Amino acid sequence: MTANASDPIFLPKGFKFSAVRAGIKASGNPDLAAIFAGSRTRAAAVFTKNRIVAAPVQVGRAALVRSRGRVRAVIVNSGNANCATGQAGVRGCKAVCEEMGELLKVRPFEIFPSSTGIIGVPFPAEKVRSHVGALLAGAGASVGDLRHFAEAILTTDTRPKIASVPLRSGSASLIGIAKGSGMIHPQLATMLVYLLTDVSVSPSELKGVLREACDESFNEISVDGDTSTNDTVLLLASAESQASFGSIRKEFRAALSEVCRSLAEQIVSDGEGVQRVIRLHIEQARNRAEALQVARTIANSMLVKTAWAGADPNWGRILAAAGRSGVPLNPERTTVAIGDQVVCKGSVACVFDEQKAHDHLSQAECSVRVKLGRGKASVRFLTTDLTTEYVRINADYST
Amino acid sequence: MTANASDPIFLPKGFKFSAVRAGIKASGNPDLAAIFAGSRTRAAAVFTKNRIVAAPVQVGRAALVRSRGRVRAVIVNSGNANCATGQAGVRGCKAVCEEMGELLKVRPFEIFPSSTGIIGVPFPAEKVRSHVGALLAGAGASVGDLRHFAEAILTTDTRPKIASVPLRSGSASLIGIAKGSGMIHPQLATMLVYLLTDVSVSPSELKGVLREACDESFNEISVDGDTSTNDTVLLLASAESQASFGSIRKEFRAALSEVCRSLAEQIVSDGEGVQRVIRLHIEQARNRAEALQVARTIANSMLVKTAWAGADPNWGRILAAAGRSGVPLNPERTTVAIGDQVVCKGSVACVFDEQKAHDHLSQAECSVRVKLGRGKASVRFLTTDLTTEYVRINADYST
Repeated sequence: MTANASDPIFLPKGFKFSAVRAGIKASGNPDLAAIFAGSRTRAAAVFTKNRIVAAPVQVGRAALVRSRGRVRAVIVNSGNANCATGQAGVRGCKAVCEEMGELLKVRPFEIFPSSTGIIGVPFPAEKVRSHVGALLAGAGASVGDLRHFAEAILTTDTRPKIASVPLRSGSASLIGIAKGSGMIHPQLATMLVYLLTDVSVSPSELKGVLREACDESFNEISVDGDTSTNDTVLLLASAESQASFGSIRKEFRAALSEVCRSLAEQIVSDGEGVQRVIRLHIEQARNRAEALQVARTIANSMLVKTAWAGADPNWGRILAAAGRSGVPLNPERTTVAIGDQVVCKGSVACVFDEQKAHDHLSQAECSVRVKLGRGKASVRFLTTDLTTEYVRINADYST
Repeated sequence: MTANASDPIFLPKGFKFSAVRAGIKASGNPDLAAIFAGSRTRAAAVFTKNRIVAAPVQVGRAALVRSRGRVRAVIVNSGNANCATGQAGVRGCKAVCEEMGELLKVRPFEIFPSSTGIIGVPFPAEKVRSHVGALLAGAGASVGDLRHFAEAILTTDTRPKIASVPLRSGSASLIGIAKGSGMIHPQLATMLVYLLTDVSVSPSELKGVLREACDESFNEISVDGDTSTNDTVLLLASAESQASFGSIRKEFRAALSEVCRSLAEQIVSDGEGVQRVIRLHIEQARNRAEALQVARTIANSMLVKTAWAGADPNWGRILAAAGRSGVPLNPERTTVAIGDQVVCKGSVACVFDEQKAHDHLSQAECSVRVKLGRGKASVRFLTTDLTTEYVRINADYST
């Protein structure tokens, strides 16, 4: 079982996709998209841990509670985060859900809203509302329709992110669509991710497997240490295949984990200004929490990230970042490896082939391993270098 | 009372300075320096909170304990941090102190060592030892000698950092010399800072006032969020003036605070690749700790720092960083101001003059204010933007 962007796409039954140009993005690119689902569809979601949350996160979270996990449509706009927009933003978001609900003849809280883009710009509710009809009219169930959806939800991303796997020898399937390129440092939830399956499964079962899958995928990546205000992962199950969750529990979990990990990797490798992806392995930690703490401190150190941008085997910065992580590590037991070479053992420099380490770090993907000698827990964490291009992209966003 | 780099220099009695070229820096610039002090000199120091500490920090900390706060000389090399150098690094550091002690006819633990530069490169103890005699021979008490010392301890700094104030109408004085430009995110101690006075004061009194002064200066700045392994602030009092600490307690405290704040500002404004300094005011926090937590999260957000590099009044990133700081802030009470304009009130966008905000952020120094509406504590925090130049400097350090 694999799930790469270039793989064939396995579409679950029971979903239609649509995308239009609503004039939100200055570029004129498609910026409004929807997923339509049948009446047996059940849903679960996880959201950003940021205390500042966007209007659609507030509205969507409340809607899932009120509908008890029923979703008939997802409506996503890019180009405007509808965050820090106050009551007007919440009203605008609800008005869009009401419009869509009326057209579909379902209750407004069965519509799940998402927004992504700049924070603090008034939400153009009228623009969005006036295009809901066109979204519905243009919906289709083909791979092409899916791709249009995946493209319309992008912001600074350079490519759509899709992963899918067949279930039960192809009689059912699971697909994921994601966007995210900056402000990537999820805590529990992340970015915008839509996971669709045609398995029959209850909202509470969905919630359990979704948390588990997020923990070992989106919660183990970081581009820039910033947790977005709009992070959302939504899992929809249409129940349109013959497969029920009870009978393929293990297969479903593995598939969900696979799809989430693939999307997480696609997000990191398409990170803003990213030149290379670094696989951080933090090993011999006392528990997963401290392994993650060390991983995040290293992954978000500007000095470490800039050294990686230069393919510089400057492991002293990695060691120094681990040392300030807050984990009471023992320098004598701390070891750092770049690729397959140990470069520092017990916090002391080793003799190693610098050119080889430089060559390893010059690849599009490379690995750094830190052993803490404190226990048996480990974590693998995906992150990126920090390039002048990242600075350029982000020094010139709203102006 | 002022303490700026361009101000006249007030030299306390009882100190001599020296600097030589020991061949540690590839540039061939002066890289070994010393301060010599009389027998009545008393000392206090604070050190890095990083778990990975350099050999001179270990040796210097132990020496101060053993000597009960007596220091006869400080020896500092730049170009090599003597960190992650294991037992060889510690032996090398001690050998240097022994050599200096022998020449001065004092005990080796009355010599206080410091190192700054790259981590993980073997410490060139022989090079250093063989230049100790020249250091001693070249020592002098003039402002020129002081400047040579201040220059020899620099690494990526572009200029020396000195601040001084007269005490008791000039009958005594306090001076500070600092270095630091990257890996600046002190916790309790910071960088290399030497504070000298000719007041008569005990080590325990020195320690008390030093902690207080550090808290409101070096602990309120950040360039890149990375805490160095070598951070050291050393305060020496020669007792060569007529002033005793007991009689000028208040004046001394104010002077120490002034000098530390000036050095902290000089360090930030000379930060690697820094284009502008941002004065962050975090107000209405429940306590100082949470104000600092919000300040540090904003100050270290790559998205916030890159927006500042573009003089971009993208306050949504500031709000989002505050939101993920871990402080349970209430969005409805959170307000952000850029310069004298409130740009977001209760987490909702305000109408403001964007051009004016952009102009404010285009200055060499600008101010950002975040009010949390939670209490009465506040903190002022100095930080910088994140420029392509920072990335360039740090992507090409050791290679």
